[in-house]
Amino acid sequence: MGDARLKHYGWGREGEAMSAEEQAFVLGRYRQKFGRDDFDTIAVPPLAALKLRAPRITPPDSLTAICRSEPYDRAAHTFGKSYPDYLRAMLGDYDCAPDVVAYPRSEAEITAVMDWAGGVGASLTPFGGGSSVCGGVEPRVDGARYKATVTLDMRNLGKVVEVDLTSRAALIEGGTYGPALESQLKPHGVTLRHFPQSFEYSTLGGWIATRSGGHFASLYTHIDDFVQSLRVVTPRGVLETRRLPGSGAGPSPDRLFIGSEGTLGVISRAWMRLQARPKFRAGASIRYRSFFEAAHAVRAIAQAGLYPSNCRILDPQEAYNTGAADGSVAIMVLGFESGDHPTDAWMARALECCADHGGLKEEALADDAHLQGAAGIWRNAFIRMPYAREFLNPAGIINDTFETAITWDRFETFHDKVKGATERAIVDATGIKGEVTCRFTHVYPDGPAPYFSFHALGRHGALLAQWQAIKDAASDALIEAGGTITHHHAVGRDHRPWYDRQRPELFATALRAAKKELDPLSILNPGVLFDP
Amino acid sequence: MGDARLKHYGWGREGEAMSAEEQAFVLGRYRQKFGRDDFDTIAVPPLAALKLRAPRITPPDSLTAICRSEPYDRAAHTFGKSYPDYLRAMLGDYDCAPDVVAYPRSEAEITAVMDWAGGVGASLTPFGGGSSVCGGVEPRVDGARYKATVTLDMRNLGKVVEVDLTSRAALIEGGTYGPALESQLKPHGVTLRHFPQSFEYSTLGGWIATRSGGHFASLYTHIDDFVQSLRVVTPRGVLETRRLPGSGAGPSPDRLFIGSEGTLGVISRAWMRLQARPKFRAGASIRYRSFFEAAHAVRAIAQAGLYPSNCRILDPQEAYNTGAADGSVAIMVLGFESGDHPTDAWMARALECCADHGGLKEEALADDAHLQGAAGIWRNAFIRMPYAREFLNPAGIINDTFETAITWDRFETFHDKVKGATERAIVDATGIKGEVTCRFTHVYPDGPAPYFSFHALGRHGALLAQWQAIKDAASDALIEAGGTITHHHAVGRDHRPWYDRQRPELFATALRAAKKELDPLSILNPGVLFDP
Repeated sequence: MGDARLKHYGWGREGEAMSAEEQAFVLGRYRQKFGRDDFDTIAVPPLAALKLRAPRITPPDSLTAICRSEPYDRAAHTFGKSYPDYLRAMLGDYDCAPDVVAYPRSEAEITAVMDWAGGVGASLTPFGGGSSVCGGVEPRVDGARYKATVTLDMRNLGKVVEVDLTSRAALIEGGTYGPALESQLKPHGVTLRHFPQSFEYSTLGGWIATRSGGHFASLYTHIDDFVQSLRVVTPRGVLETRRLPGSGAGPSPDRLFIGSEGTLGVISRAWMRLQARPKFRAGASIRYRSFFEAAHAVRAIAQAGLYPSNCRILDPQEAYNTGAADGSVAIMVLGFESGDHPTDAWMARALECCADHGGLKEEALADDAHLQGAAGIWRNAFIRMPYAREFLNPAGIINDTFETAITWDRFETFHDKVKGATERAIVDATGIKGEVTCRFTHVYPDGPAPYFSFHALGRHGALLAQWQAIKDAASDALIEAGGTITHHHAVGRDHRPWYDRQRPELFATALRAAKKELDPLSILNPGVLFDP
Repeated sequence: MGDARLKHYGWGREGEAMSAEEQAFVLGRYRQKFGRDDFDTIAVPPLAALKLRAPRITPPDSLTAICRSEPYDRAAHTFGKSYPDYLRAMLGDYDCAPDVVAYPRSEAEITAVMDWAGGVGASLTPFGGGSSVCGGVEPRVDGARYKATVTLDMRNLGKVVEVDLTSRAALIEGGTYGPALESQLKPHGVTLRHFPQSFEYSTLGGWIATRSGGHFASLYTHIDDFVQSLRVVTPRGVLETRRLPGSGAGPSPDRLFIGSEGTLGVISRAWMRLQARPKFRAGASIRYRSFFEAAHAVRAIAQAGLYPSNCRILDPQEAYNTGAADGSVAIMVLGFESGDHPTDAWMARALECCADHGGLKEEALADDAHLQGAAGIWRNAFIRMPYAREFLNPAGIINDTFETAITWDRFETFHDKVKGATERAIVDATGIKGEVTCRFTHVYPDGPAPYFSFHALGRHGALLAQWQAIKDAASDALIEAGGTITHHHAVGRDHRPWYDRQRPELFATALRAAKKELDPLSILNPGVLFDP
């Protein structure tokens, strides 16, 4: 981690932001979209202006060395990075600030913090990089049941402990941030190659706890398949699964904790399956007359068993917004890579699939197309986009995303229903036409993972209600049309109403019973996934 | 299913057996192995000679149409196909015969049988094809706690209900046998392509409940990844997961039931991901001087990201036993297949990996090598082998297999320890040198799934104790050396002592709590996975 500390409001570290040119580009798109010359912009309160309640608990002497209750620590751990998180921070609403932030340096200290929190009737929120976009790290609890809130920041458990090149695996601590993880692996010639959009400001433990989606657009889409074994600290003790390449011994113990979002325990370390660093790459951008035409090509490629590392499509408006095309065509970003062999045969067959469905390959792209052309422009926008919210939201612009997955047979109807419902909700909530765009982030032989972005011009004073109305309509539509409330953003608190409809009730019953055994006082992340 | 009924002792249907030539080949190998001209052979009691206790319960009128307590039904549902199962059947020990066998024709009838069993204090054992080799289908219960035993045979739920060619998936009932499943899919041009050795006499529900290992030697090794959604009948009600190509919404509900071995519910139907029928195939047999040399090549191929459909290796003795080689070389059976594109580039690169590690390709093999040469001989032996036990065991020959998985860094030490411990146990238990061979059934980038066979000449009257001593030594060794007690045969009752050591205790606690919610009376398959 660098020297500057993480912002309490915004993305990344203090001092980091989009350049003036980037901001002008992004704001320009919105001026055009909403037909406005300028936006009514409010000021975000600085840290010094925040009013936080006095901490309700004080750590015991044995924990003071790793606990902080300074305004910065508490403010920087109040929210994740969802739209309502930004909004409430912008309004100075820090009611949910944790009373204490603990920074354990060992499993023993995690246990000590757990024991203390349980003993004083506090909740405990595991915290990786804090990049949750669904209310997964906010200590929002029932003040009657919980007397206080403690957040457990894992940043001090950030080491790659052991690398096994023979099996191509590494033992890595749960609090390891993306860049630190890769820089520790690099000297060994291997990579985890898991790059969620939050990569710089998220951790291995967070990725596993939320079933994060990464670099690979097909095959190994979620972090799940890269987990070889886990160590999990629970209030009842430490649990370690066996390091195995595969097993059929009962239900997978790892899979119970993968996606448990901090409700069953804290992932202290994991053996992770690695990749050879890629030596061979083939990349292409392909244009299509329509998004559905591009989707047909994606389906053909996904069902061909070619396993592209990249196979993402952007609808015309999404491609335009990121500067990758002029708004008249859909774009496919296609890539193959290997640490072992040239991927020409793979790319050649995939391009045949593209041509079969009307795809037109952009010319003048070398093998490093992943850094050039429409693909490169989109990739850069993808990485920089998280920095936009901190100046867009104060301008009253509601911009958010939601993502899902659906089988191919229902995809087109599903897309139209969800997009239509979201567009209508924007007009209903704001009175102004907005925009809803779609891309695919990951693809499977049996269906895509569509990712929607929406843009609306809200009104200060009503922003939260306006956003919620749009979110509700979009979520209702995607659950009714058969999708999942999340493909890789996780459930947190914000997706609960729809997760509760999607999840079989008897599974919830089973999961609650499991939690009761591992976390008898229900201190871990209450309200996430299920009610305590 | 054909007309003849399933044997109550042995593999397959009444009237089916190895031909005289096959029997002579197999017995010849054993004569040579043990230096005997002949074996002391006992007679297996026919069905009519079996003494079964009178059924302890009688189904209510509403269930008589689907319940049987005839000697055949009870005898044919007493055992799976493990070595001790064969042995006890051979000795006429049918103490564990179920009192009643129910053949439900609908989910409502499954529920009705569950309700009745719970009401009369009986256990309920879900039964697919009965091919368990680890005590998974035997109603072996504590007679004090359970007043009687009911077995639920799923054979009447054997339909492919719906095929979705767009998403390449099908909704299939849990009691569908392998051949019936494929014959119903074939007219649609698709296949599940899941071929465990038990394929002919096992069911989709059984495969899912036991995390069965199938056709694909790499990538999609277990049935797990082909499950798109499940319907499960539990004593608390029916649970259905959402049909999704991928999801990140909490811990996977499917993964709780995949591998639950009938302890949490009965899988009544599942949406399964399918494959296009293969149009392009490339196959080769490759010889190596040693098993470890072959293993090095497997590792290279597995880590290259080529995903062969077949990449199995046989040690020299294993290759000799199946007639695939002369005992001086290890054999690799390598295959690629695709419903979409020629696989030449894939095979070419894999063969380079083989050559890098001393592999010598067998010549004169056409593209249909999967049916010819060493590969073809081995494949045929693989399919026919289950028929050997019914005449080997009465001859006092103890032949059994066990399988596991281990990471590459520990594989060679692991192999030698497990093989050595098993060889020593054979001598200790029988006084006669036996044989232990190894092959790989499935391979991963981070390790192989070694599959051991052992052969010992036992003594009538002591066979069960001799087998158990060998099994104990082998299992102790593989658990101590870091493996899993099963890669795809499941846990059942027989693997419990080692599963209990391998599985994190807190996970067992969580699982038991989940079971208590779904099966409050603990009627489902008691003793499997955990104690009720």
